[in-house]
Amino acid sequence: MSPRAIVELMMKNDAFSRWLGVDVVQVDKGTCTLNLTVRADMTNGFHVSHGGIAYSLADSATAFAANAHGEQAMSIECQMSYLTSIPQGSTLTARATEEHRSKRLGRYRVALSSNDKPVALFYGVVMFLGKPWKLES
Amino acid sequence: MSPRAIVELMMKNDAFSRWLGVDVVQVDKGTCTLNLTVRADMTNGFHVSHGGIAYSLADSATAFAANAHGEQAMSIECQMSYLTSIPQGSTLTARATEEHRSKRLGRYRVALSSNDKPVALFYGVVMFLGKPWKLES
Amino acid sequence: MSPRAIVELMMKNDAFSRWLGVDVVQVDKGTCTLNLTVRADMTNGFHVSHGGIAYSLADSATAFAANAHGEQAMSIECQMSYLTSIPQGSTLTARATEEHRSKRLGRYRVALSSNDKPVALFYGVVMFLGKPWKLES
Amino acid sequence: MSPRAIVELMMKNDAFSRWLGVDVVQVDKGTCTLNLTVRADMTNGFHVSHGGIAYSLADSATAFAANAHGEQAMSIECQMSYLTSIPQGSTLTARATEEHRSKRLGRYRVALSSNDKPVALFYGVVMFLGKPWKLES
Repeated sequence: MSPRAIVELMMKNDAFSRWLGVDVVQVDKGTCTLNLTVRADMTNGFHVSHGGIAYSLADSATAFAANAHGEQAMSIECQMSYLTSIPQGSTLTARATEEHRSKRLGRYRVALSSNDKPVALFYGVVMFLGKPWKLES
Repeated sequence: MSPRAIVELMMKNDAFSRWLGVDVVQVDKGTCTLNLTVRADMTNGFHVSHGGIAYSLADSATAFAANAHGEQAMSIECQMSYLTSIPQGSTLTARATEEHRSKRLGRYRVALSSNDKPVALFYGVVMFLGKPWKLES
Repeated sequence: MSPRAIVELMMKNDAFSRWLGVDVVQVDKGTCTLNLTVRADMTNGFHVSHGGIAYSLADSATAFAANAHGEQAMSIECQMSYLTSIPQGSTLTARATEEHRSKRLGRYRVALSSNDKPVALFYGVVMFLGKPWKLES
Repeated sequence: MSPRAIVELMMKNDAFSRWLGVDVVQVDKGTCTLNLTVRADMTNGFHVSHGGIAYSLADSATAFAANAHGEQAMSIECQMSYLTSIPQGSTLTARATEEHRSKRLGRYRVALSSNDKPVALFYGVVMFLGKPWKLES
C-alpha cells in the first residue's frame, strides 16, 4: 500500500481525527502535514484552543508519518511544549518529520504553527509492531 | 473562590472538556480526579481511544488541580506514556496529584486507569501567572 | 543471577558510576535506591551540582532496577525535572520504582532527594533486549 | 558581556564540564556546539558511554546557549532520547539550537552525533532569572 492509501484507510476509521476536521495536506514515508481549524467546541476555560487539540493533531501527524512506511506503529511516548495560546478560529498546522528510525522505534518531531508563527513543539516515539498494512478485503 | 467554584467556572467555559463528557469526581488544591467514557467518536484508526483523548483528560485534570490553588496557571510542558490501548466503551479515570509547587511552577503526575488497570502515565508542568481567580461579574 | 549479583556485576564494569561514588543502598526486581555525595568536581558554573550528576544517578538507578529482573535492558527515553539546586557536599538519594512493565518496555520513576527534601524528578523508559544476565566465565 | 566571555566565565567555574573535557567549538546567543571524547572512566556496565555523559554534554550546551543571551538561565525540564550506543574513544558532539524564547522560558534542541551519525536527541527548557551576567570584580 502507498503512504497515501495507508493514511486514507487510517483516516476512514479515525472518527476523532474526522471530528477534529483534520485535513491531510501532505504524507509520505516518515513525513506528514495536517491542518485543522480551531472551532468553538475545541476551546478551554481560557477561551483558547484546549491543549489536547494541538496535541491530538500532532499525535495523528506522527501516527500517519510512521505508519506510512507500511508497517503498523503505535505511539509509546509523547512530549508537548506549549509556546503560546491559539485563539478560536485559527488554522493550526502540524508538520511531522522523522528524526530517527530503527527496526523497532521511530522518533518524530512535530512543529505546530498558526499563521506561520510557532505555537507548540511535539516529540513522539512510536514502536513498530511487525505487522504490514494491507487492504481490508 | 473555592477549588470547586474555580473548576465549575473553568468547566462552564471549557467547551472541549464538555464535549469529552468530563465528570469531575474530585477536586482540591493540587489534586483532581476526572472520568470520561470512550465514545465511538473518540476512537482512532485502530478502533481504540485516540491518543489525544486520554491526553486531554490528563491535561484537564492537571489544569484543574493547579488552578484550584486560586491563581491562574497554564500548561507549559507535558509528557505522556501509553501503556496499553483503551477500547471504545471504557470508562477512563485520570487522577492528578501535585509533585511539587514553587512560586512560578507546578509539577503534576496523572495516573490514567480503566477498570482499575493502569493505561497511561502523564506528567505536566504548569506556570503560575500571578493572576488570582475571581468571580466574573 | 540474583538482583544483587546482577547489579554488582554491572557496577564492577561501570566506571562512571564508580567515579560518581555511587553507593547501592537497595536493589530488587524493579526497585533500586542509590546515594552519592556531591563533590567539588561535580559542580557547574553556578557552584551547585551540575544537572548531569543527578540525572546520571537517576539513570543508573533505573538501569539497575530494570536489569535486576534478569534480562538486559537499555534506556531509550528519559525525562528530568529540576526542582531546586543541590549544593556541594550534599548527599543525594535516587529512589527508582517501576511504574509498568510489559514484555518489551519498562517504565520507572525516580524520586531524587537531599536531606529528605525533593530536589528532582526523573522518568525513564527502558527496552528489554531478550538477553538474560549470566555470570561471565 | 559577550556570549564567548559569559561561557568562558561559566566554564571557569564548571568543574564537571572540565572533568568531561568539554571543548567549546562554537557559542553565540541561542546556539552552542560542544565536543568531548568518551574516556574509559565515562563508560557504564555495557562498556559504552554512560547515558549521563551525553546528557551532561547536552545540558551544558543548552546552558551555554541560553546564558549567552546575557541573562542567567537555569534548566527546569530536560528530555533525552538514546538512538544508539556510543563506544569508548568516540568523539561526541552536541549542537544546541534555540527553538523558542519568551521573556521567561527558552526551549532548546540538541542534536548529539558521533562521526556524523546521530546518537541521541535532547530537548531542554530553561527559565530566565532576570539577573544579567556581569564580570566578577
